[in-house]
Amino acid sequence: MSPSVVPPDYYALAAKAIAARDSCIPAEYRLPKSAHSLSLDVHELNETSDILTDEDREIINLSALQLRDAIVSTRYSAEDATKAYIKSASIAQQATNCLVEMFAGEALERARWLDQEFQRTGRVVGSLHGVPISIKDHISVKDHDSPSGFLSLVDKMVCEEDAHLVKILREAGAVFYVKTTNPQSLMQLETRCYLGITYNPYNIGLTSGGSSGGEGALISMKGSCLGVGTDIGGSIRTPAANCGIYGFKPSVGRIPYGGANTPMGPVGYDGILCTHGPMARSVDDLELYMRTLLAGEPWLVDPSLSPRPWSPMVQTEKKLRIGILRSDGVVTPVAPIRRAMEAVIGKLQETGNFEMVDFEPFNSARAWGILSALYWPDGGEVLEAHLRRVSEPMDPLTDWIISWSGRKPMSGKLQRELVAARDTFRRELAAHWQKIGIDVLLCPVGPSPAPPHGTSKYWNYTSYWNLANYPAAVLPTGLTVDPVLDTELKCSGRNADEDYIYANYDAVQSQGAPLSLQVVGYAFDDEMVIAALKQMDLVLNGPKGFLAR
Amino acid sequence: MSPSVVPPDYYALAAKAIAARDSCIPAEYRLPKSAHSLSLDVHELNETSDILTDEDREIINLSALQLRDAIVSTRYSAEDATKAYIKSASIAQQATNCLVEMFAGEALERARWLDQEFQRTGRVVGSLHGVPISIKDHISVKDHDSPSGFLSLVDKMVCEEDAHLVKILREAGAVFYVKTTNPQSLMQLETRCYLGITYNPYNIGLTSGGSSGGEGALISMKGSCLGVGTDIGGSIRTPAANCGIYGFKPSVGRIPYGGANTPMGPVGYDGILCTHGPMARSVDDLELYMRTLLAGEPWLVDPSLSPRPWSPMVQTEKKLRIGILRSDGVVTPVAPIRRAMEAVIGKLQETGNFEMVDFEPFNSARAWGILSALYWPDGGEVLEAHLRRVSEPMDPLTDWIISWSGRKPMSGKLQRELVAARDTFRRELAAHWQKIGIDVLLCPVGPSPAPPHGTSKYWNYTSYWNLANYPAAVLPTGLTVDPVLDTELKCSGRNADEDYIYANYDAVQSQGAPLSLQVVGYAFDDEMVIAALKQMDLVLNGPKGFLAR
Repeated sequence: MSPSVVPPDYYALAAKAIAARDSCIPAEYRLPKSAHSLSLDVHELNETSDILTDEDREIINLSALQLRDAIVSTRYSAEDATKAYIKSASIAQQATNCLVEMFAGEALERARWLDQEFQRTGRVVGSLHGVPISIKDHISVKDHDSPSGFLSLVDKMVCEEDAHLVKILREAGAVFYVKTTNPQSLMQLETRCYLGITYNPYNIGLTSGGSSGGEGALISMKGSCLGVGTDIGGSIRTPAANCGIYGFKPSVGRIPYGGANTPMGPVGYDGILCTHGPMARSVDDLELYMRTLLAGEPWLVDPSLSPRPWSPMVQTEKKLRIGILRSDGVVTPVAPIRRAMEAVIGKLQETGNFEMVDFEPFNSARAWGILSALYWPDGGEVLEAHLRRVSEPMDPLTDWIISWSGRKPMSGKLQRELVAARDTFRRELAAHWQKIGIDVLLCPVGPSPAPPHGTSKYWNYTSYWNLANYPAAVLPTGLTVDPVLDTELKCSGRNADEDYIYANYDAVQSQGAPLSLQVVGYAFDDEMVIAALKQMDLVLNGPKGFLAR
Repeated sequence: MSPSVVPPDYYALAAKAIAARDSCIPAEYRLPKSAHSLSLDVHELNETSDILTDEDREIINLSALQLRDAIVSTRYSAEDATKAYIKSASIAQQATNCLVEMFAGEALERARWLDQEFQRTGRVVGSLHGVPISIKDHISVKDHDSPSGFLSLVDKMVCEEDAHLVKILREAGAVFYVKTTNPQSLMQLETRCYLGITYNPYNIGLTSGGSSGGEGALISMKGSCLGVGTDIGGSIRTPAANCGIYGFKPSVGRIPYGGANTPMGPVGYDGILCTHGPMARSVDDLELYMRTLLAGEPWLVDPSLSPRPWSPMVQTEKKLRIGILRSDGVVTPVAPIRRAMEAVIGKLQETGNFEMVDFEPFNSARAWGILSALYWPDGGEVLEAHLRRVSEPMDPLTDWIISWSGRKPMSGKLQRELVAARDTFRRELAAHWQKIGIDVLLCPVGPSPAPPHGTSKYWNYTSYWNLANYPAAVLPTGLTVDPVLDTELKCSGRNADEDYIYANYDAVQSQGAPLSLQVVGYAFDDEMVIAALKQMDLVLNGPKGFLAR
């Protein structure tokens, strides 16, 4: 007689993982159950909570760069900074479910060591001395787990070393204190996994976006000043846009990728590549991240990287030439996104400092056809095995994205055909871009603001630039969805993709959702994107900004 | 009754192709049949031939850079330069069988147009104004055929436009006048195809090397000052070394590759990539090529290229730190190569300007295992179809290199496994290199000087750096094989690869073969390789050089 096999109880295991995660939030920073039960909008909870002191609040309102400077000038210690962020991240977790782990003790110990070093030597350790930095779960941090959205991997992915970029950030003086949520499969523009849903701080009925949704929610709530996400289809830009913060997807080939765990994808596949990028509350911090990583000369360890230090643009008399893409030619964005585009174009025009020109959409549907087929070289086999091991149900959004592969392993022949199509697309898009002759492109980040949970199925405003491998950033406009101004039809009648978006958007349901736009640069022109973002941000959100936050 | 099918007669078709090629050599530049029948060494034929005038000889003894300057200073016209090279290339062809096509009329017309433009405007067209440049057959030149080593493709590959890099060279003022031979399959380190063998000018019993063997022989005979080859396993470096000239394989990702015809390989395959590089008679000309191409901003057309202009190294007080690799740990080079290594090391040491350190061989056999399996994604299927169409026999060297694929199409799974192994090798080699901490590496180009025809079967001294994607150049030492000094055993008894090399090397048979070494730089450090090559070249071959030519 064979022993009877009891199938693992997914729900019991998930509850255990959730309890373990919850227990790492220090008891003194736990909220009463009723704290935000009546409010859709929780994004300012850290501004009012008794758990934070006035000094804590000063700290969490600084950018990473300002915080670093305040630590260098001994206004705050690294320990002060870390304590403040442990508090604010604890609250962010309880409001939005954005953390996989918090390691307050280790972080405080590190912060105290940094303070001692500074006192002992009179010198800071590096350009991020004492700055708390949050890390998306699937990126390796030494001695911490990295289940990457899979319940079956909990406690099985404790990393023996830091990811390449984590190592550089650590050497520059960063303090790591939390790992943030990512969705089942890592391939969603939302963040839903065995830990539950990560909510949008501006409206918990809406998604934070994904797959770096934990970062989006955490940074938006000032539970972090600077975090690291990853992006292969919009996974930095979508949560940044949905949560009203800045985000940047660098070109693949500038920033090291070693040490990101993607347990659902076979190694050795380079049909389409992912990249690590920063998410923050200021453009300066995006640049701080790039500058710090490239100052670490990552190409000496990873020979696939171009040996180019960060070389910021210099101010000239020349006007920035901006291409305007209002629609990708498939799905026209819903009313609030159109309103945000026109408002921003208007404000930029008023300054007289920008030259603007229409950018004709170029082969959007074809791009998605190539990219969606490129995503799953094994047809999802390995992923399904991870789920089966603990009887984890497949999330409908995971199911949807895998379905584009036909659920078959990719043959060598198909892989080469898709790569050839990708390269042709890249060459043709380059010609299209150069013909129009722009410095950067301004376009939507998606066809709608943060959608209701479970409905994020149109990736092509962001994923298009992954197929192209163009650097792209998110610019918050300071505007949010207005239930009166932003009503929209329930159906466009033009095509199924557009009908789906219009059916799932509702101005009342989406009220308060931040409106963000995307700034895209030509291949490898990462410096141009940041320079343009800075210039536009100054108009929209700067000291003399026009749009209210 | 079905009509009887007569199989195509390969030999008759090849004879027709050879006759057509021969007929493009101007009648007045044809040699009497007896011109070099008794000499193994034909490399100085252009120095003595009556066909060239004294002025022609002055011209062909200039570097490309010197020739450009001489044209700018109106000492010679573009037409003078082109005429001189048409003559010297005609003789080179008849001595070594290095051309696929000559188009004297078109070239002279172009040269006269350049002269007129210069006279009319007072300005040169670009940095290569009037310089004749030779192009390897499989690279597209507008309105010219590109059969790429396959008889079945003769007259079927007339190109509608220039390859990307040909376009940039043309815009810079280059004059194209010949296309040079490449072997059947393009995948040989020799040059044998339907047109026959391309001979080594220093010893016609030896191979010119390949696959850019036509360039090697032509440039070595001063039938060209600057030519374009391609390299995916040693195809620039081997013919440069065998023929005693300079050659450079840039990093993939710096120089545009668009418009190279590789009819035997499927598109969309990026497991291992080929690159275009210069072959010349001076280091300056290698740099002229890089500078000219990158000044053309090729990344605006080809978004896969890093947007980095050529930025030559600046002189500092720091000594160049050179790694020395005497053997790859599998095949110890034969006597003359060892002699050349020690002579060069000695001469460099004497100057006191170089720091030298041993470089331990790193995983050579594993590198070849990965690379040789990566070469043929389709197991040679398409190639065999090209041969079958005209009953062309498969060359034994083609057969040998395909055999490494197992003659099976590569599955998606295998492709990903090989790419993962490649990436691991690259990361580990980078760590090995950085640990030793060198600027460049000095090593052999192959285990022996130019081998007898049909025996070039050990690629790993060159192909290793293709797998790594490190830039690598060839430095002629000025030394040649000496039948007395360079005797060697017929068998090493250590392993089959080494035994094969020792069995095929003979000091008497190889007499006169040039001895060359390889200078390798870290990934993407192309500028460093050229700077180091320049510095070493000055010691060995410069105005105050020690080694006689």
